[in-house]
Amino acid sequence: MGDNNGAKQWNFGANEVVERSSSLGIRDYLNNLMSNLDGQDKRPVIPLGHGDPSPFPSFRTDQAAVEAICDAVRSTKFNNYSSSSGIPVARKAVAEYLSRDLSYEISPNDVHITVGCLQAVEILVSALATPGANILLPRPSYPMYDSRAALCQLEVRYFDLLPENGWDVDLDGVQALADDKTVAIVVINPCNPCGNVFSYQHLQKIAETASKLGILVIADEVYDHFAFGDKPFVSMAEFAEIVPVIMLGAISKRWFVPGWRLGWMVTLDPHGIMKDSGFSQTLTSVLNMSTDAATFVQGAMPDIIGNTKEEFFSSKLEMVKKCAEFCYEELMKIPCITCPCKPEGSMFTMVKLNLSLLEDISDDLDFCSKLAKEESMIILPGNNIVFLMSFLESFNY
Amino acid sequence: MGDNNGAKQWNFGANEVVERSSSLGIRDYLNNLMSNLDGQDKRPVIPLGHGDPSPFPSFRTDQAAVEAICDAVRSTKFNNYSSSSGIPVARKAVAEYLSRDLSYEISPNDVHITVGCLQAVEILVSALATPGANILLPRPSYPMYDSRAALCQLEVRYFDLLPENGWDVDLDGVQALADDKTVAIVVINPCNPCGNVFSYQHLQKIAETASKLGILVIADEVYDHFAFGDKPFVSMAEFAEIVPVIMLGAISKRWFVPGWRLGWMVTLDPHGIMKDSGFSQTLTSVLNMSTDAATFVQGAMPDIIGNTKEEFFSSKLEMVKKCAEFCYEELMKIPCITCPCKPEGSMFTMVKLNLSLLEDISDDLDFCSKLAKEESMIILPGNNIVFLMSFLESFNY
Repeated sequence: MGDNNGAKQWNFGANEVVERSSSLGIRDYLNNLMSNLDGQDKRPVIPLGHGDPSPFPSFRTDQAAVEAICDAVRSTKFNNYSSSSGIPVARKAVAEYLSRDLSYEISPNDVHITVGCLQAVEILVSALATPGANILLPRPSYPMYDSRAALCQLEVRYFDLLPENGWDVDLDGVQALADDKTVAIVVINPCNPCGNVFSYQHLQKIAETASKLGILVIADEVYDHFAFGDKPFVSMAEFAEIVPVIMLGAISKRWFVPGWRLGWMVTLDPHGIMKDSGFSQTLTSVLNMSTDAATFVQGAMPDIIGNTKEEFFSSKLEMVKKCAEFCYEELMKIPCITCPCKPEGSMFTMVKLNLSLLEDISDDLDFCSKLAKEESMIILPGNNIVFLMSFLESFNY
Repeated sequence: MGDNNGAKQWNFGANEVVERSSSLGIRDYLNNLMSNLDGQDKRPVIPLGHGDPSPFPSFRTDQAAVEAICDAVRSTKFNNYSSSSGIPVARKAVAEYLSRDLSYEISPNDVHITVGCLQAVEILVSALATPGANILLPRPSYPMYDSRAALCQLEVRYFDLLPENGWDVDLDGVQALADDKTVAIVVINPCNPCGNVFSYQHLQKIAETASKLGILVIADEVYDHFAFGDKPFVSMAEFAEIVPVIMLGAISKRWFVPGWRLGWMVTLDPHGIMKDSGFSQTLTSVLNMSTDAATFVQGAMPDIIGNTKEEFFSSKLEMVKKCAEFCYEELMKIPCITCPCKPEGSMFTMVKLNLSLLEDISDDLDFCSKLAKEESMIILPGNNIVFLMSFLESFNY
């Protein structure tokens, strides 16, 4: 404060917790990799580092969804502030949409509309971050969970996804990690980044394990319906009788509109466990302090859902499947790369790098950096010797 | 964890910090007041508790802005993820828009697009919340600052706005409150909730005081252009040579579209103080971990700004002025109420309640609760014996 040897002192500055949290995130990784690109290279950059093929004509959204937005904004009914959990028509539309594929009906009161799935992660992590608490995250993970947990000083413990078991959860590892300060486990299905889909039986085992440990299941199902292998997609919502579940989703992936920022967080609590423990109220309280999805995008939800034809979804899913197969077949031809599991869901696959077959590559990050520099191609490093890439975007080049 | 006397134990529950933070917020107040409404009362509720007149036909947004949204979403160019600080066309459009009224040009690099002004508050408070730090907030305040600061455990110290001085900042109080852990001061101009506008000279004094204390100025100018009294609106941006300023704004108020969720946070740092201290990087890092405004609303910004005619703004401002005058004149007729200052900005006014003239009213909260119950009218309690109301919405009844 005031002057010090002629140089004025200011009280504000870097926030170390923020810096550490952000360094775990996907955008920091992407920015770092992009900085390796060779500006002299005239070839277009091949961005396989994130799940957003929407700029490509083959993954354009349905015109009915576009017109639903235009109708909603022209109606003048949706210019006002939203309510904290979203406007009733949107909550009802999402409840009905999700109930189509379930063995029971979701209540609109259990649906909370968010600014994309990312804001649902922000809100959930804030709500769970009590002093001393810890959360179980998968390894490999979608790094936004790691970032937001670090920001809220919620301790993270990692359980493994096992490539030798089709990327299933290491349930023994989960039990060994948890203690009475463990509040939740995150399960991403179809899996970002591994490209697998969990079976009904495996999901049930996860639910039973979580119930035994007394912890909440956060079911990140933003890639719901992106299952194109042998296993059908099953929602963790089917196991809410066993354990309280919070299901996350969005229109981002299925409609190919991540920029529309419309997600949801659904509390599935048939035995009133979240309610009785006070956690439901805490979630509502965080929503009360948080920004909202655009009201007219919410207002468009009944028509976005109601007017998009089944044919749009089935044709896109067929394309996604072809992309995955093409990507897998081409990867198999590269000697230094193996793919532990043929991709069967989401937009990604994880592959293993055989460093002994490569010259002058120290690890996966080094490989990704040099690929950016030498080939103008962006893929993301995984843990140690695996990396992920979006096969949807590989299809566009 | 596990069973205990037959009743299963769960590890998650209420988060006390969240509950305490939320109880300070405006939505909790509003929900509590609404719970006093008499369901048997057939008269419509008169909601003067928040600044959103957009549902009323007299405050409908400009058709050019609506068409800008439709054009942007139909273009198919804006379905993808945004970048962390917003897409370049939006940052450039906002920089040019704000520069119109300033004595210098704002760079697009200094503009960060947010999900309404509220997300800018969320991000700023997260960035400033280092261990032991404190922030200076006005009293009366816009309570979202209080809530978010409590959530991030950033200590709040209150300085007074002085009704006897036209709600000017108590600068002696500010100096007495600050210490070397004080990181920033929040200045809301035109003022929510007091309805005043700060003069050029007073803003300069605030900037000089902040500079002397070594703290950042957060200039919440979401009600910019809502000045209709004798004093013109002057942006704190004019004093960035004296002290680093972060200016907050949005299209929410001037276009009457708070539900479109498009705001901004502008870093004004001509001497590189925020940059050199690492604070700019910290802000970028929080943005990297946070959700974004809808990309197509960002993409519509050049046309929303470029195609809205000056006549739209001038006619609405004239209406706002008439509302304020009408509200002030009617309030003056009520014996138990005095209005310290004639409203000259924002959408609100603060009035003083003379409890000695009222029977069976213990304080302002009691008055507001009984007004909700007996007259189906919602206004917000202020500090002790003042309360605020939105005069724009009073006009619609």
